[in-house]
Amino acid sequence: MNTTERARLLTIYVGESDQWHHRPLFVEIVHRAHAAGLAGATAVRGFEGYGGTNEIHTLRLLSLTEDVPVAVTIIDTPERIDAFLPVLDEVMTGGMATVEDVDAIHYSARTPAHRFSWGLSTHHRDDLPASS
Amino acid sequence: MNTTERARLLTIYVGESDQWHHRPLFVEIVHRAHAAGLAGATAVRGFEGYGGTNEIHTLRLLSLTEDVPVAVTIIDTPERIDAFLPVLDEVMTGGMATVEDVDAIHYSARTPAHRFSWGLSTHHRDDLPASS
Amino acid sequence: MNTTERARLLTIYVGESDQWHHRPLFVEIVHRAHAAGLAGATAVRGFEGYGGTNEIHTLRLLSLTEDVPVAVTIIDTPERIDAFLPVLDEVMTGGMATVEDVDAIHYSARTPAHRFSWGLSTHHRDDLPASS
Repeated sequence: MNTTERARLLTIYVGESDQWHHRPLFVEIVHRAHAAGLAGATAVRGFEGYGGTNEIHTLRLLSLTEDVPVAVTIIDTPERIDAFLPVLDEVMTGGMATVEDVDAIHYSARTPAHRFSWGLSTHHRDDLPASS
Repeated sequence: MNTTERARLLTIYVGESDQWHHRPLFVEIVHRAHAAGLAGATAVRGFEGYGGTNEIHTLRLLSLTEDVPVAVTIIDTPERIDAFLPVLDEVMTGGMATVEDVDAIHYSARTPAHRFSWGLSTHHRDDLPASS
Repeated sequence: MNTTERARLLTIYVGESDQWHHRPLFVEIVHRAHAAGLAGATAVRGFEGYGGTNEIHTLRLLSLTEDVPVAVTIIDTPERIDAFLPVLDEVMTGGMATVEDVDAIHYSARTPAHRFSWGLSTHHRDDLPASS
């Protein structure tokens, strides 16, 4: 069984080495999304890319370095995503994010014992809070 | 030369270790998309993430584990994507998918000998049907 | 501080081994986006996927091989993305791209010394122009 609902997709672009108070920024973002009760967050590592000044608005000058870009994708209702943007704003000192409206399909477990797990593959779990 | 058309983008979020009848679920999904004749499917591995209960609808409780999240992106016409959703529903016992409308630009080969290849990089090809 | 603006998201799907004049095609695309002054480009490597003929329009026959799919995501204003499409068309002999409208949030640096860096993780920097 599944249900469909309007949702909002927030994608946040940061560098893998960007830090927030001695913690990787993307970890802080996933932590804050989790603490805010958002439905899910996925971090994907790019392997090549750049950023730069452009005419949308004045941005800082970006340079090509060895830093790997990371895109964190967060999905939830429009209201919950909008409520999260000020929380995100606190830790973003550069970079960008995109917001778009999508339809979200939620699938239900058929067997009570089924557990759908996402998780840490490359980073210490100490950085994340205990499961809520 | 290229042509542009309205298309629908389906992104399916599963755990890399999720299984369907002893086969990785994301492989089953790519298999089913291929069998349904959908234009293309790409699986991307996230390296950090979580899911959890939220207020959109009641979902199973998710936990942080070592499972890596995988996002499978499938693009085709709205009609073909809609026709695929019941096929997808058969194998999804949890998790979520998003659907959004986009413009798709299709590029034509200039030389008849050009072959554009996508393919398996990390998994046995035995799991996939012979090319249709 | 941040600013929000309508933006256009261009995602280009190629094979990692696709070439343009003896250079990897995805590198050429990132190079051209950078030369065109586009705000940013991120290449993400898929690890499984396929493409094939379908009924949207006649495409070349694709086969399953060991080639890894790469998705290059480029974000900028609608006008600048539209101006880039003919530049992209010159190097695309197959495959596809999607275009969708999103809201883009641009974050400002709080400290003048902050540098947001994206960069090369796996490829020689010789292929890219000096920072503009």
